[in-house]
Amino acid sequence: MKVNLLLFDDFETLDAFGPAEVLHRADDCLLDCFSAKGGEVVSAQNIKVVTRPFSEADPAGVFLLPGGMGTRKLVEDAEFIALIGAAAGAAAYVLTVCTGSALLAKTGLLDGRRATSNKRSFAWVRSVNPVVRWVPNARWVVDGNVYTSSGVSAGTDMALGFLADRHGRAFAQALAARIEYIWQEDPDSDPFAVAD
Amino acid sequence: MKVNLLLFDDFETLDAFGPAEVLHRADDCLLDCFSAKGGEVVSAQNIKVVTRPFSEADPAGVFLLPGGMGTRKLVEDAEFIALIGAAAGAAAYVLTVCTGSALLAKTGLLDGRRATSNKRSFAWVRSVNPVVRWVPNARWVVDGNVYTSSGVSAGTDMALGFLADRHGRAFAQALAARIEYIWQEDPDSDPFAVAD
Repeated sequence: MKVNLLLFDDFETLDAFGPAEVLHRADDCLLDCFSAKGGEVVSAQNIKVVTRPFSEADPAGVFLLPGGMGTRKLVEDAEFIALIGAAAGAAAYVLTVCTGSALLAKTGLLDGRRATSNKRSFAWVRSVNPVVRWVPNARWVVDGNVYTSSGVSAGTDMALGFLADRHGRAFAQALAARIEYIWQEDPDSDPFAVAD
Repeated sequence: MKVNLLLFDDFETLDAFGPAEVLHRADDCLLDCFSAKGGEVVSAQNIKVVTRPFSEADPAGVFLLPGGMGTRKLVEDAEFIALIGAAAGAAAYVLTVCTGSALLAKTGLLDGRRATSNKRSFAWVRSVNPVVRWVPNARWVVDGNVYTSSGVSAGTDMALGFLADRHGRAFAQALAARIEYIWQEDPDSDPFAVAD
C-alpha cells in the first residue's frame, strides 16, 4: 500500500503525522511526503519537512491530506485545487483530516457525498461547498473510497478505522496497542460535535 | 517557553509530533527541531525533518526527547549520551516519550528517580539502567522536573499533563478540545501496563 501524504505550508502537524504513524505500521505500507512543488514545507508548529514534488508520486495508492490554517489560502488557489482533484481522482482511497476536507470539497469530488471536518471551522468548511452532505456529528465519515475526519486528533482514529476496514478490527486494535493508543473506534461517537 | 525537540534517525514520528502539536499550542511556546549535528533526520515512518545543530539551542527551556528504534544504537553512543546529559541538565524541564527515557537513563540523571517507558520494550529499557525506579504501570510519571511517558501515544497525554501542571487543568482541557483530542488525563491509569 502506497501512501502519498500531501503537505503544504501551515499544515497542522498532528493532522498529518498521527495518520502517518498509524498507516506506516501496516506491514505493506510505503509512505512518502509530497508537496505541490517539492522542497521544504513548514507546519503550523514549526516542523520543517523535506518533500518531493507531487509530479513524482504514483497517485494510485492512498492519498492522505491534512488540514490546518494553510487551507484558508489554498482553497482559493486554483492550481493547487486542480492538483488535489487529480490526485484524489487517481487514488484508490482518499483520506482527509480536519480542514483537509475543505480542499477536497472545493474540487467538487465531494458533491452530494457525506463528509465531515473540524468542528471549530465547520461553518467555514460548509461555506466552501454547501452541496456536500456535511455531517456535524461524527468522529469520521466514510463515503465510498473517501474517508474524512474531524479535527486534528480524529485523523488518527480514522486511520485506524481505515485499516480495520481493510484488514479487520483485530488488526487495527493490535496496531493501536503497539503504539499504546486508546482508539476511539466508533466513527459516530463524537464528543466534540457542535449543534447544527 | 522554549521547547527544544531533539531528533535522531529512526525516531518514532508520533513520539515527537504528538507532544510538539500540544506544546506549540501553549501561547508562549517557541518550538524548534534539533539533532546532534543538524541537517536532515528521517523518522521510522519516513518523515524527513530539517533540524538545526543542538549547539545552536538555548538549552534553558523544555527539552523534549522522543523514542523509537533509533535509541537502540544511540544508547551505546557515548558522544550522543553526553549531549543528552548536558541538554537535560541545563533544561528547566525534561520530557521524554517512549524509549527516549532509555537515553535519559543512560546519562545517570534518572538514577534513583521514578520514570516509565514503552511497555513493549520495558525489559530492555530497565536493562539500560536498573538503578532507575522504573514504574511499569503508568501513562506517564513526574519526578521533579522530569516527565517520562509510556509508548508513543502516551506522550501526547503527558504533554497535556505538563501544561496542566504549568497552567491548570482547565487550560489543558481547553487545548485538548481545540484539537479534538480525548485526553487521558490520569497519569496512573495505564491500559497497556504489563505485569512486572
